[in-house]
Amino acid sequence: MTDDTRKQVDLAAARAAFERAASTHSQEFGRFFLAQLLGFEIGYSADACTVEFDVEQFMFNPQGTLHGGIICLAMDVSMGHLLAHLQGPGSTLELKTQFLGPVAAGRVKVVGRMLRQGRSICFLESRFFDAQGQLAAFATATWKLIKPSADR
Amino acid sequence: MTDDTRKQVDLAAARAAFERAASTHSQEFGRFFLAQLLGFEIGYSADACTVEFDVEQFMFNPQGTLHGGIICLAMDVSMGHLLAHLQGPGSTLELKTQFLGPVAAGRVKVVGRMLRQGRSICFLESRFFDAQGQLAAFATATWKLIKPSADR
Amino acid sequence: MTDDTRKQVDLAAARAAFERAASTHSQEFGRFFLAQLLGFEIGYSADACTVEFDVEQFMFNPQGTLHGGIICLAMDVSMGHLLAHLQGPGSTLELKTQFLGPVAAGRVKVVGRMLRQGRSICFLESRFFDAQGQLAAFATATWKLIKPSADR
Amino acid sequence: MTDDTRKQVDLAAARAAFERAASTHSQEFGRFFLAQLLGFEIGYSADACTVEFDVEQFMFNPQGTLHGGIICLAMDVSMGHLLAHLQGPGSTLELKTQFLGPVAAGRVKVVGRMLRQGRSICFLESRFFDAQGQLAAFATATWKLIKPSADR
Repeated sequence: MTDDTRKQVDLAAARAAFERAASTHSQEFGRFFLAQLLGFEIGYSADACTVEFDVEQFMFNPQGTLHGGIICLAMDVSMGHLLAHLQGPGSTLELKTQFLGPVAAGRVKVVGRMLRQGRSICFLESRFFDAQGQLAAFATATWKLIKPSADR
Repeated sequence: MTDDTRKQVDLAAARAAFERAASTHSQEFGRFFLAQLLGFEIGYSADACTVEFDVEQFMFNPQGTLHGGIICLAMDVSMGHLLAHLQGPGSTLELKTQFLGPVAAGRVKVVGRMLRQGRSICFLESRFFDAQGQLAAFATATWKLIKPSADR
Repeated sequence: MTDDTRKQVDLAAARAAFERAASTHSQEFGRFFLAQLLGFEIGYSADACTVEFDVEQFMFNPQGTLHGGIICLAMDVSMGHLLAHLQGPGSTLELKTQFLGPVAAGRVKVVGRMLRQGRSICFLESRFFDAQGQLAAFATATWKLIKPSADR
Repeated sequence: MTDDTRKQVDLAAARAAFERAASTHSQEFGRFFLAQLLGFEIGYSADACTVEFDVEQFMFNPQGTLHGGIICLAMDVSMGHLLAHLQGPGSTLELKTQFLGPVAAGRVKVVGRMLRQGRSICFLESRFFDAQGQLAAFATATWKLIKPSADR
């Protein structure tokens, strides 16, 4: 391409992300393609699932900040992985996200937690912290377990 | 890689999508990197913005259907582009999505419309139709215009 | 009371509403106490439940317009009654309401409709029209049927 | 009335609530009619607004638990009063409530807090605790200040 007037993302970083995903992904919890493409590092504590990643230009909206859809994706992952970890895989019935401020760059951290764990329906929340540790987005979601638990 | 037990996505399709994005994107409305990576075709009618794209395996969640985050991303784009088209760029204050059923494959269509257009705050909705034309997701969102309109 | 500086609601209208509720209510769908207090007239068409009522001062917020909680209540009723009418009683898992503009006076109309009817989970929407017929609020909700249907 | 088959609420309690509202209300923050009818005791700490009240039968849905609309109303009040207390009156752009479980009886407590305080837009959350202190509902909302602050 010789279209020098195009506003382009850092293509080397994007290509490195793609190759990472191509060579390491497996379509299961923890390392599915989108998670690897976005560089998600997914970890668990007693009551939370944490997703950490570096914001790259290829994840931007046209206005030059992290796209809201990527924010939703990361928050959804933090909740879905927590649910799968604690109780088994589920599907998101609904997700609401509030975007408290733009996210520009750096390593961000998303923390998913349970609000109420039911036998077939679970309520979760997720908090998105920017590189300065400030709350940048807040989400709540309602999930349905694929297989209802017998014992709750 | 020789890890034959990995469940992999169709890498040729993923690579084609990446190269399309790399060679055609420009960070502006209509063809920013994520939109090109996902193959979004964005069009406008009098009162709506339509985003069409082909569902590919690399967009999947670990359970083998279109990731909810990608659904949110496409719906957000349909509303944000409509707003930019009608009134000027805005930022999403919040986005609420209901996932009515899983989306597996084929060409999908997302339609963003205005619910109420204000001077500084706008309310929008978006409908996600699967390849069979069935409503698969429904979203509403609240947007804040970057520059409030003078005349509304 | 002799506190003449108090900003009071129309007490005669409030008292009439209370006496109507006291004398006509029965704790079942259609005429439970809150519905009678607020003067809800609840009707059904093939695919919708309609709640109509007159806005009274006693339903106001401190700023002199219909309280958002009453708007939520009416929209919740329109969806819950439709669900009970079509499929059996359910409980609201979550309710999302956008308030497009203030509602000041007159007879308003709320219309609940099904977005997707499932065997155990149903998605509904509700539209709140002010006395001029303009959309004043929009809600979506996710419901869980008390008894899942056998045949859907 | 002689309709003995009607399922009625405790009318003495309802009438007492009505008379309390009639004699004590004033259409301003803290003691507007609906707040007095529902017996809201509204208090403030450094960063929260608390609404406490006794659940009465007249607040029930047809299934015999606290109506979701009343839950929304109380949560909306906890956030709107906090905002008015901290920064000035605002209007709710949108409200999402998750209902984690039914609320049957007793004294409940609703706590509204700020998620992010902006110059014109504020994000808040509210938690509804049942008489046993268990989280029974969770809400987030987006507010617009009537008069934007000059200094934030």
